[in-house]
This record gives sequence, C-alpha cells and structure tokens, in this order.
Amino acid sequence: MRDGTTPAAPGGETFADLAAAGGARIERIASRAVRDGAWYEQGWDEFVLLVEGAATLAFADGSRRDLGPGDWCLLPAGCRHRVVATDPAAVTLWLAIHLPPVTPPAA
Amino acid sequence: MRDGTTPAAPGGETFADLAAAGGARIERIASRAVRDGAWYEQGWDEFVLLVEGAATLAFADGSRRDLGPGDWCLLPAGCRHRVVATDPAAVTLWLAIHLPPVTPPAA
Repeated sequence: MRDGTTPAAPGGETFADLAAAGGARIERIASRAVRDGAWYEQGWDEFVLLVEGAATLAFADGSRRDLGPGDWCLLPAGCRHRVVATDPAAVTLWLAIHLPPVTPPAA
Repeated sequence: MRDGTTPAAPGGETFADLAAAGGARIERIASRAVRDGAWYEQGWDEFVLLVEGAATLAFADGSRRDLGPGDWCLLPAGCRHRVVATDPAAVTLWLAIHLPPVTPPAA
C-alpha cells in the first residue's frame, strides 16, 4: 500500500484500482491533510479499512467516527458520508472495497 | 481489525466474515505462528492485505513472497498458494477479499 502515488498538496487525494472482478472493485486511496471532504452516497456497499494515518468520517445523522490504522467501517448503500479530516501531518492510506450493487427484486 | 478472536495455539487460524454482497466476501483472518500451512487453490480471485504481523507465501512455481504490514497480494483464480510461515511471536492479521467468481462464457 505504500507503493503508489500520493497527493502533493494538502486536501488532495489519489485513487488507484488494485483489482476488480464481477462488479467488485478494490481501490487504494491516498489522502493528504483532507479537511471537510465532499459528501458521498453510493448505490452499493463500500467497506473501508484505514491502513496508515488517521481520519474522521461524518454521517448524515451528525455522528462521527474516528479511524486509526487497522480500523474499518462498512458504508452501506445509501449511507451518506464524508471525510471530515485526515491526519494533517502525514499521508493517510485507505483500502476501499466497492461491493457489487445488489439489484432490488422486480416489483 | 484488532477486535475479534485470535487463535490461542501456535499454528491456529480464526476466520470471520466482515461483509459480503453480490458474490464478494470480505474476511478477517488471524494467524498465530503458522508453519507450513495447507495449499489452497480457489476458483475466484482473492486479494489479501497483511494488516499486522508478517508472513511468507509460497506458490506452485517455487517462488515466495514476504509480506509485512500494508503489503498486499492478488491471488488469481487457480493460483495454487500457501502460507509458509507467519510471525512466530505475534498474531498476524489479514484482510482477505474473495472476489465474485467469473463464470466462463458457455462454449
């Protein structure tokens, strides 16, 4: 995970796909001193593992979650979330697994 | 990843599913002082990230790969592999992602 690009400027993020199959995708994310990141809401479950660094996630209900190395979080489809902050002094590395979307049964 | 069961005895491994959807499965594996583990060969791609500890993988062609924290390895479907050893002095934690099997097109 330490191999690969890292963002040069504070607030930057780089993304790289490491593997993909059958609608699932495994992604490396490197974040440098992110503050008040954009809100995300996906139509599939996303699992994130914080590999190195530190981060705080925020959710639509106002709750927050601090993550350190080895901490993980499952973001179910439709879960509105954002990165409030990552370590201001170092690059934060994430492994994000985008699970295949589950198609709802036909009505 | 530090939360969860760990094997009590040397050579032991514990497995726990953390998430699954659409044929993909994310698994936490804790290994204690494994030596000469069993050979595995799956019909799907497996991605492993070593989160904590250390391990050596071996492949059918005789090659080996040492993994430390943050190192990952993609084990394609049909890739025969095994764990030669994990850290003798500490629990090794892995995140394993079993990607959905890709069905070959009908002949």
